[in-house]
Amino acid sequence: MKMESNSHKLSRPLQGIIVPMVTPLLDRDTLDVTGLERLVEHIIAGGVHGLFILGTTGEAPSLSYRLRYEIIQHVCDRVKGRIPVLVGITDTSFVESVKIAGKAEDAGADAVVLAPPYYFPAGQSELLEYLNHLTHELSLPLFLYNMPTYTKLVYEPETIRAAAEYPGIVGIKDSSGNMVYFRQLQTLLKDRPDFSLLMGREELLAEAILLGGHGSVCGGANLVPELYVELYNAARLKDLPQVEVLHRKVMELSNAIYKVGRYESSLLKGLKCALSCIGICSDFLAEPFHRFRRAEHEVIEKYVSELGIAKPGKSD
Amino acid sequence: MKMESNSHKLSRPLQGIIVPMVTPLLDRDTLDVTGLERLVEHIIAGGVHGLFILGTTGEAPSLSYRLRYEIIQHVCDRVKGRIPVLVGITDTSFVESVKIAGKAEDAGADAVVLAPPYYFPAGQSELLEYLNHLTHELSLPLFLYNMPTYTKLVYEPETIRAAAEYPGIVGIKDSSGNMVYFRQLQTLLKDRPDFSLLMGREELLAEAILLGGHGSVCGGANLVPELYVELYNAARLKDLPQVEVLHRKVMELSNAIYKVGRYESSLLKGLKCALSCIGICSDFLAEPFHRFRRAEHEVIEKYVSELGIAKPGKSD
Amino acid sequence: MKMESNSHKLSRPLQGIIVPMVTPLLDRDTLDVTGLERLVEHIIAGGVHGLFILGTTGEAPSLSYRLRYEIIQHVCDRVKGRIPVLVGITDTSFVESVKIAGKAEDAGADAVVLAPPYYFPAGQSELLEYLNHLTHELSLPLFLYNMPTYTKLVYEPETIRAAAEYPGIVGIKDSSGNMVYFRQLQTLLKDRPDFSLLMGREELLAEAILLGGHGSVCGGANLVPELYVELYNAARLKDLPQVEVLHRKVMELSNAIYKVGRYESSLLKGLKCALSCIGICSDFLAEPFHRFRRAEHEVIEKYVSELGIAKPGKSD
Amino acid sequence: MKMESNSHKLSRPLQGIIVPMVTPLLDRDTLDVTGLERLVEHIIAGGVHGLFILGTTGEAPSLSYRLRYEIIQHVCDRVKGRIPVLVGITDTSFVESVKIAGKAEDAGADAVVLAPPYYFPAGQSELLEYLNHLTHELSLPLFLYNMPTYTKLVYEPETIRAAAEYPGIVGIKDSSGNMVYFRQLQTLLKDRPDFSLLMGREELLAEAILLGGHGSVCGGANLVPELYVELYNAARLKDLPQVEVLHRKVMELSNAIYKVGRYESSLLKGLKCALSCIGICSDFLAEPFHRFRRAEHEVIEKYVSELGIAKPGKSD
Repeated sequence: MKMESNSHKLSRPLQGIIVPMVTPLLDRDTLDVTGLERLVEHIIAGGVHGLFILGTTGEAPSLSYRLRYEIIQHVCDRVKGRIPVLVGITDTSFVESVKIAGKAEDAGADAVVLAPPYYFPAGQSELLEYLNHLTHELSLPLFLYNMPTYTKLVYEPETIRAAAEYPGIVGIKDSSGNMVYFRQLQTLLKDRPDFSLLMGREELLAEAILLGGHGSVCGGANLVPELYVELYNAARLKDLPQVEVLHRKVMELSNAIYKVGRYESSLLKGLKCALSCIGICSDFLAEPFHRFRRAEHEVIEKYVSELGIAKPGKSD
Repeated sequence: MKMESNSHKLSRPLQGIIVPMVTPLLDRDTLDVTGLERLVEHIIAGGVHGLFILGTTGEAPSLSYRLRYEIIQHVCDRVKGRIPVLVGITDTSFVESVKIAGKAEDAGADAVVLAPPYYFPAGQSELLEYLNHLTHELSLPLFLYNMPTYTKLVYEPETIRAAAEYPGIVGIKDSSGNMVYFRQLQTLLKDRPDFSLLMGREELLAEAILLGGHGSVCGGANLVPELYVELYNAARLKDLPQVEVLHRKVMELSNAIYKVGRYESSLLKGLKCALSCIGICSDFLAEPFHRFRRAEHEVIEKYVSELGIAKPGKSD
Repeated sequence: MKMESNSHKLSRPLQGIIVPMVTPLLDRDTLDVTGLERLVEHIIAGGVHGLFILGTTGEAPSLSYRLRYEIIQHVCDRVKGRIPVLVGITDTSFVESVKIAGKAEDAGADAVVLAPPYYFPAGQSELLEYLNHLTHELSLPLFLYNMPTYTKLVYEPETIRAAAEYPGIVGIKDSSGNMVYFRQLQTLLKDRPDFSLLMGREELLAEAILLGGHGSVCGGANLVPELYVELYNAARLKDLPQVEVLHRKVMELSNAIYKVGRYESSLLKGLKCALSCIGICSDFLAEPFHRFRRAEHEVIEKYVSELGIAKPGKSD
Repeated sequence: MKMESNSHKLSRPLQGIIVPMVTPLLDRDTLDVTGLERLVEHIIAGGVHGLFILGTTGEAPSLSYRLRYEIIQHVCDRVKGRIPVLVGITDTSFVESVKIAGKAEDAGADAVVLAPPYYFPAGQSELLEYLNHLTHELSLPLFLYNMPTYTKLVYEPETIRAAAEYPGIVGIKDSSGNMVYFRQLQTLLKDRPDFSLLMGREELLAEAILLGGHGSVCGGANLVPELYVELYNAARLKDLPQVEVLHRKVMELSNAIYKVGRYESSLLKGLKCALSCIGICSDFLAEPFHRFRRAEHEVIEKYVSELGIAKPGKSD
């Protein structure tokens, strides 16, 4: 019954701006519930087309399972079907992935998202067998998630092509930044217009959509969701002058907010820091990371102001 | 009180042959209990100096937490303090690592073992801060575990040097195969004879011990524990002719049993396959892997016979 | 005087389709002179905007210096200023790079192109110092060349930003496939409209140009130069329907011709093989590669026919 | 005739301490001839068993070919057959490798040394074919050189096993630091006692020899050749107490001299700097590197003094 009520929401292919939600935390195992609710409302108010919780931006691998289940429940309860909710189930343990997927289904989520298991380096044929086994255990539709920077294991294009034939696998989110890969997927899947090709790097949202991608998963849409929605719409309408203006804004935000500090984690830290600057949620990060300290915080604060990122409730 | 009763067992530094136990499985979430008990007895009968469960060879990242807890309890109950039990607590989630450590302590294990969190790429200073936080939450002694092939994150020598000052961090197991790294650690820690330097690659057991290492974690000791114990003893006694003979046997086993099949997982598959050939336990592997199919199984069977690896209870 | 006569040709920024010419060979140290001349005429007839010799596609690192000098002379003599000629001077030896650049200048080439030295892993500050020293030894304008797959050393965006201030450095060719990197360069260099941003992967030509790139270096333009020129023109004119049609053709060629065989070198082998199929030049490759053997040759032949790639002189 | 006179020198297998000679430079294309001669005498006086010029430590890839030929001639003239001279011929161009080998032969060198071509990523079967072609063009014996840090291409153990059957291929120098690899080679080549297994990392010299390796290529032997010779002799004689004392000295030198500065090039810079501190030769490095500046120079000077590294001609 739950499935029925949801099933109308997840269009095939899924299109538009999907927000990989950060996880507001008070400490390493305590949800910032007020921050979470404020964030959900802020994002939905921006007109986005879906919410992706427990992804990389959501720090899922750093969280306890108890906390992950709590987040699933809270978010689904809060969203109440206004937009589709996708839940990350990536795990090194098959059994735990299935268990999270069960919680997602129970809470009323709309789909699950899976990067390759990231400890043992599976071969491509093993990866395909793994997906085959997994689809037999899932009820919700499944999006694949290519994230080689962190998983060190690529879903090769031919693996995706084969997996697209498995029941329940409905799309892929590519966060590799390798645009040749994305274009190869499009070519290989040209006979599958229902298979959703989502760009996982917001800097490439514009071009992904202009040349046939279906949507984009944009971390910055936690902060300024309407910017990405507008850019998506302009790209869909092939309004190139407008695309250029908005794409430039996306790049400015990226080159400022995500480039503070010296580690690869600067995107995540910058995003949470900026969200705290505009009063949405705590900037606490779970281990192995920590929030920006004063010096970096001040740089982010300056950028937030310069970029005109407004507190929610105020016009921008 | 439990700690007291155990504390006599874990010598400083820990020395000798530690067996990274494979996890006998009937299916992806069911323990092969009989196989496990047979394996524990087989290993202890071989005269080894410790058991390391839930490591890479134990497929820990592929197992559910429920199953991991079950294994901790079963093994500790079975070993009954005859040899020290070390428990892998490596996890991307700090909270889950602490939770496994708590189960290990409750079951009467002697120490825990931790590779770096392996999804997000922490910087070395973040890694050190993470270890600092973690030691405050642990009661059992902690061994670091350098395993860059799978975690893609190295504990840099200077990080280990600094971490060795944290209370409760008592040693490192290095599975990198990079012997220059191991020698650098020895040099950096020469004023800390109590800090255990364990070689994680059995092919390097002989030389690690000959030039000052304390012990070795040998996957092959699941199969023929006495071989590694004898080699360890010969190396400790600087009996070079004997070392050469036994080292050659170790290399022969490694170049046969661990080299079948085309993926990096061939060590794990070969080991489980060989254990099933001599009637110890099932060769089932959890996803993303699978047991060897017939062709590879036959090759392993042939090697087991050629190498004279005998069924337990029979003389070799 | 030579410089003067050339200086009108190399516009700032350089724009359009630049062809990374393959090197027709009879054997490892013998130029296929007839093939080379046919190829040059074929390419120029396609309306391209420049020729890049001695790049990766030209197998430069595999060729003797004697042969490289011969190629420079032959090509410049044949082109006779009809289009700009860029010459690859990438080398692990500073002195040899300068020497090739001298030959290029003497022969009347228009610019030189340089990837980072690719044996010793220089740090970014060392790389910048190296570029600083080099620009003092060069007379011709210099394009940087980002090719991390082969050099394993990236010109970091900040390094490029700094190098763009050195006299004589006039642009960059990015062959990483990492489109986020390309967009970051654009953002960092937005105040330098004269600095040429060239896309080194033909699969990304369309989007590079649509959103502000200046040109593209397309291996496939050895084979069907007019396809890439038409796509470039459509993208410049923001004619999206036409862009989509032509981009699809580019992807089809790429997914066919460059994907035969099992090694990373399949692009180079496929390209030379296809050129020999349409009668332009020999498909000999210098060590460490070799031409496709019969099975792969037949697959390429089939693709050439299916894609309608015509022999020069015949209409397609 | 030249070959004849040399052939007695190169024992099969080649054994002992081989010195990868640094290249004393006055500037990027000018040999420090006086320094070179002093260095050659210093090394030979230390009792080493061979000299390896134009390797990684010799900065060969950074030097012009003219300079490389000059070095070959100078060194061979100076050594006058007192010890075997090995010459690096690693190159991305097959033709240039053959040409350097010809110069080596003409000058009276005893063998050549070859790492895989390091720009294009050859497959293992291509690498084997490349070696096959190359052996047909060489007169001098050939050592393979495994140096994945810089070439990014490993000679897989099975490739070495196959290549060991080619006429003229007489050994391998392994600089990977991966001791499991070295032990695997020994096992695969146990029926070929004439095939020389040389350890390319001085930190592993002791254990390589203790368990059956034939020799070691030690950068530090530019500085204190007798230390490595003594350690080699102690290891050959299985004099473990003496091995331990000398191995500790080798590690102390390595952990001091090679660890200054922040880049991977610190070994090369530290070595040249230390050589200049004891008055042997200039510390100039060719691009892309540069000599240590004052701060690092002072650190090296301090270490040289603390380690008691004496000027040649003075007792230590």
